[in-house]
Amino acid sequence: MAQVIMDKRDVEFVLHEQLEVEKLAKNERFAEFTKKTVDLIISEARNLAVKEMLPALKISDEEGCKLENGTVKVPEPFYRIYELFKEGEWISLCDDPKWGGQGMPTTISMAVKNYFHGANFPFTLAILLSHGAGKLVERFGTEKQKNLFLKKMYTGEWSGTMLLTEPQAGSDVGALTTSAVKNADGTYSITGNKIFISSGEHNMVENIIHPVLARIEGAPAGTSGISLFLVPKIRVNDDGSLGAPNDVVCTGIEEKMGIHGSPTCSITLGGKGQCIGTLLGEENKGMRAMFVMMNEARLDVGMQALGCASASFQNALNYARERVQGRHLQAGGKDAPSVPIIQHPDVRRMLLNMKAITEGSRSILYFIGFCEDMIRISNDPAEKIKYQGLIDLLIPIAKGYVSDRAFEVCSQGVQVFGGYGYTKEYPQEQYLRDCKITHIYEGTNGIQAADLLGRKLGLNKGQPFRDLLAEIRSTIDAAQKVKGLENLAEKTQTAAAELEKTAGIIGAMAASDKAMTAFSHAYEFMDVTGDMVMAWMLLWRAVVAAQKLQAGAKGKDAVFYEGQIASARFFTSTVLPISLGKMNVITAGDSTVIDIAEDAFGGK
Amino acid sequence: MAQVIMDKRDVEFVLHEQLEVEKLAKNERFAEFTKKTVDLIISEARNLAVKEMLPALKISDEEGCKLENGTVKVPEPFYRIYELFKEGEWISLCDDPKWGGQGMPTTISMAVKNYFHGANFPFTLAILLSHGAGKLVERFGTEKQKNLFLKKMYTGEWSGTMLLTEPQAGSDVGALTTSAVKNADGTYSITGNKIFISSGEHNMVENIIHPVLARIEGAPAGTSGISLFLVPKIRVNDDGSLGAPNDVVCTGIEEKMGIHGSPTCSITLGGKGQCIGTLLGEENKGMRAMFVMMNEARLDVGMQALGCASASFQNALNYARERVQGRHLQAGGKDAPSVPIIQHPDVRRMLLNMKAITEGSRSILYFIGFCEDMIRISNDPAEKIKYQGLIDLLIPIAKGYVSDRAFEVCSQGVQVFGGYGYTKEYPQEQYLRDCKITHIYEGTNGIQAADLLGRKLGLNKGQPFRDLLAEIRSTIDAAQKVKGLENLAEKTQTAAAELEKTAGIIGAMAASDKAMTAFSHAYEFMDVTGDMVMAWMLLWRAVVAAQKLQAGAKGKDAVFYEGQIASARFFTSTVLPISLGKMNVITAGDSTVIDIAEDAFGGK
Repeated sequence: MAQVIMDKRDVEFVLHEQLEVEKLAKNERFAEFTKKTVDLIISEARNLAVKEMLPALKISDEEGCKLENGTVKVPEPFYRIYELFKEGEWISLCDDPKWGGQGMPTTISMAVKNYFHGANFPFTLAILLSHGAGKLVERFGTEKQKNLFLKKMYTGEWSGTMLLTEPQAGSDVGALTTSAVKNADGTYSITGNKIFISSGEHNMVENIIHPVLARIEGAPAGTSGISLFLVPKIRVNDDGSLGAPNDVVCTGIEEKMGIHGSPTCSITLGGKGQCIGTLLGEENKGMRAMFVMMNEARLDVGMQALGCASASFQNALNYARERVQGRHLQAGGKDAPSVPIIQHPDVRRMLLNMKAITEGSRSILYFIGFCEDMIRISNDPAEKIKYQGLIDLLIPIAKGYVSDRAFEVCSQGVQVFGGYGYTKEYPQEQYLRDCKITHIYEGTNGIQAADLLGRKLGLNKGQPFRDLLAEIRSTIDAAQKVKGLENLAEKTQTAAAELEKTAGIIGAMAASDKAMTAFSHAYEFMDVTGDMVMAWMLLWRAVVAAQKLQAGAKGKDAVFYEGQIASARFFTSTVLPISLGKMNVITAGDSTVIDIAEDAFGGK
Repeated sequence: MAQVIMDKRDVEFVLHEQLEVEKLAKNERFAEFTKKTVDLIISEARNLAVKEMLPALKISDEEGCKLENGTVKVPEPFYRIYELFKEGEWISLCDDPKWGGQGMPTTISMAVKNYFHGANFPFTLAILLSHGAGKLVERFGTEKQKNLFLKKMYTGEWSGTMLLTEPQAGSDVGALTTSAVKNADGTYSITGNKIFISSGEHNMVENIIHPVLARIEGAPAGTSGISLFLVPKIRVNDDGSLGAPNDVVCTGIEEKMGIHGSPTCSITLGGKGQCIGTLLGEENKGMRAMFVMMNEARLDVGMQALGCASASFQNALNYARERVQGRHLQAGGKDAPSVPIIQHPDVRRMLLNMKAITEGSRSILYFIGFCEDMIRISNDPAEKIKYQGLIDLLIPIAKGYVSDRAFEVCSQGVQVFGGYGYTKEYPQEQYLRDCKITHIYEGTNGIQAADLLGRKLGLNKGQPFRDLLAEIRSTIDAAQKVKGLENLAEKTQTAAAELEKTAGIIGAMAASDKAMTAFSHAYEFMDVTGDMVMAWMLLWRAVVAAQKLQAGAKGKDAVFYEGQIASARFFTSTVLPISLGKMNVITAGDSTVIDIAEDAFGGK
């Protein structure tokens, strides 16, 4: 049967053949996650995704959310799906069972999330944010806060959000002005206006727990004066029962380009002076707490983008196999019958690009999950540091680069359908609209690029970047030994050497008085680093596939493995040469972007 | 005052300084179009665009079109704007005054259209199609058809469309099945179902004239058996008065990603056997007639894309100058106040890219108009052939390449606004949605790429391509003599030499048994040819600007000219090196896209 969200076989390939997750089960912590269990989990997730979530995607786009009498109604099918998530315990996949989590390896959870996001990311977004909020409580909460809130959040009885952005404080969080004044009982009275709060208000649950960034009276300006508070929508009594409403008011929801199923709320805190919160973590250390959550949030955004791209690709592939239009370019002559459009060169180009990008992105994201698991099970502090470094380095790639490529895939996904792709008769145009948000929230992609160049490249004196290159080179070494992959290995090696040189040059420039110029090339640097990571993942896949072919894989398996080698060959021969061009741009370090006078942009 | 659709100064620059349109007025045909007249026309167009059309853009997106009782209601403000178009005689700008046209040079009409499309392209689309339909009548109609229809179409009393696509015949027009049976009186009875008909039905006018592609009973299969018919919505009596309805029924309108103001209609012809049409031109030569119109239609699509990009850029520029967020990267230190985001390197990068692309695209499109004018006024047959060749060659660039780059600009236009860009509070997301259609209709961009490689590159044994390179080199020669531009000239020269080589290789491949592989790289070839044309236009602009600076330009003019040189420098240093990488991809001629087995795409 044609796949509709993503290629089941590919998910299994990454889990079992590329990352070999069953090895994780050798560790006591993950002992119960044998291959059989893993396959069962993935199969259940897939069922939920295909049968319940996917059919609700278009409905949610059309219905949208409605603010009525202070509460937000989400699209009708979401209420049922939410209950299924609670029942199936799909909200806190990797967390401590003590608090209601499933204790699952993160790698496995990546595959689960991949299905959920591919089926209905506007819904899944709400779940993620709930989980992220819970994580903050788990990491920074007092025992009392944990006992009152955590299990209810992890099990989905209550949901959670994140109140960060203010009208004048978007990318610049340090500019926020929401204030907190300490009360005699140790709680804080919070006052301020927050915007762009995903699922900030809705009636799928009876209480919503808001972590809120605010400034305690007299705190320093900027990010070093920001504290984190826990602010429930309905106050919670010490025995866990619900008290009075907490003066947290949803004042509006945004009309948006896409993700209509996800309510983006404006929230006023303490409009009547009655909003009470408790400090979460230490005073003035709110930003540090946020940074802890940022990796997970950004990885999730990459997963949302991949979800859109992957579903768009499967639809395009299915359509291209069925839609008959035009004759074959070379076979059959002028009177030959028309052929399915998958036989046309440019359609194949788009499909193979979509295939390679979605496959490579899947591997990047799952690999980051795998690094998380290695940290959790490793007893070697150096190894833990290495994997954390790789995660930190790869996060801007997983968010910024992957979402950029995913959007291109979604755009091609419309193209394959021609005029039909632009209509709402098919989901292609929704994937493109929904996907666009992934360029923006949790730090715009420009901020991801700046993060990669400004923070991550030089992290621990560049050790994570060297570790990444070492990982890449170890795959290249393996590929050089596989018949048929030598040429791919060589091209990847050339690109890796150029990337190393490029990183050295732009890194030095960023630390010099030419920092502005360096940062004007940060985006290109994210692009080429991403291309390199993508090439690595595809080569890694090709190595595994070639080995299986040599070991005698037959039938459908053999075809799948040949498809893996084709993806790697395509990317290596049609993307890496362009990356080399981009690296030339970076190393030349042209400063026109910085030099041009502000008025010379024109338009006045 | 901040510009909202496009930079007025830039429009003037292209018309008067780059293309020197006042020289056209030396020709008797265009004698009345002095600089003063031209400026007046542009100023009037701009007024109409800014005051009437732009305010209706968002309304039209929200209201959309409605099919009620067989007729389509367009967004409310469109009725008034349509009347203003009729009164102001904005519909047939360049056509023969005998039939109600304005006899304007095409170059000038480009600037007019640029404003109209930038302000409200869903509305303007209807006007264009009307004009295109009229053009078919002018070119192929009998005197009787012209007398009955043409003036009413050119003046807007009636409108026109184009009935081409059928559900099973999209990109493959030859597969259409709408039939025509000759009646005793020489008319034809038409029967069939057409889809994706822009403005196929609406009530802004009392009659709509549909050119219809159909197959006469017994005609050959494929494109060589297609004829063109003129089918009015309401029959027209010989005295020009309206008769009975003509059995042309709008059966539905599409729900689309964007251009909600433009009704995309499904139309049933002869459902009751009562649809009567007259042959337009010769039997079985309908496709040839369509091809005549295709250049204009595709050029218009490029203009629509530029309209979106240009407006998105101006908005982004204005926003970036006002939105204060974050500190300057190098100046002022940690406690410095926040700055407008135009001071951040990555925002500047986006803005300069948007600037260069919109400026270069403007020059490409206006230049094609200029070529039209040269054909109209030249007495030298060789010159006419040369300019026609340049037009034919540049059309896939103007449609495919320009719309691709425009979509990227619109995407960056959302990014500059951050989270706000994703909301409907600002027009940025609409420009992105509207722009996407330009990749698809009038031949998908994949078809443009195939057209460039398969038809245009080898046209007249490659003469147009050689002429293009000669034009580019003459600009390079000029640039080499201008102080400060030597380096830009050199880089452009390198790219031109590589493009010539690349064209030779892919052209030969396309004519060999590796045609499938060649066409799998057709898109990249369109990309690099487009980059080259863009680089040429920007260098041309820079030469003009540098000369004016050397001649002592001062104040605002000097700043503008410096901005021109900055655009060229930016493009030359950050895009051309990437083009060289793409050329390497093409010349390497990897065949993975063709070789991969259909099943190996996966998903089954």
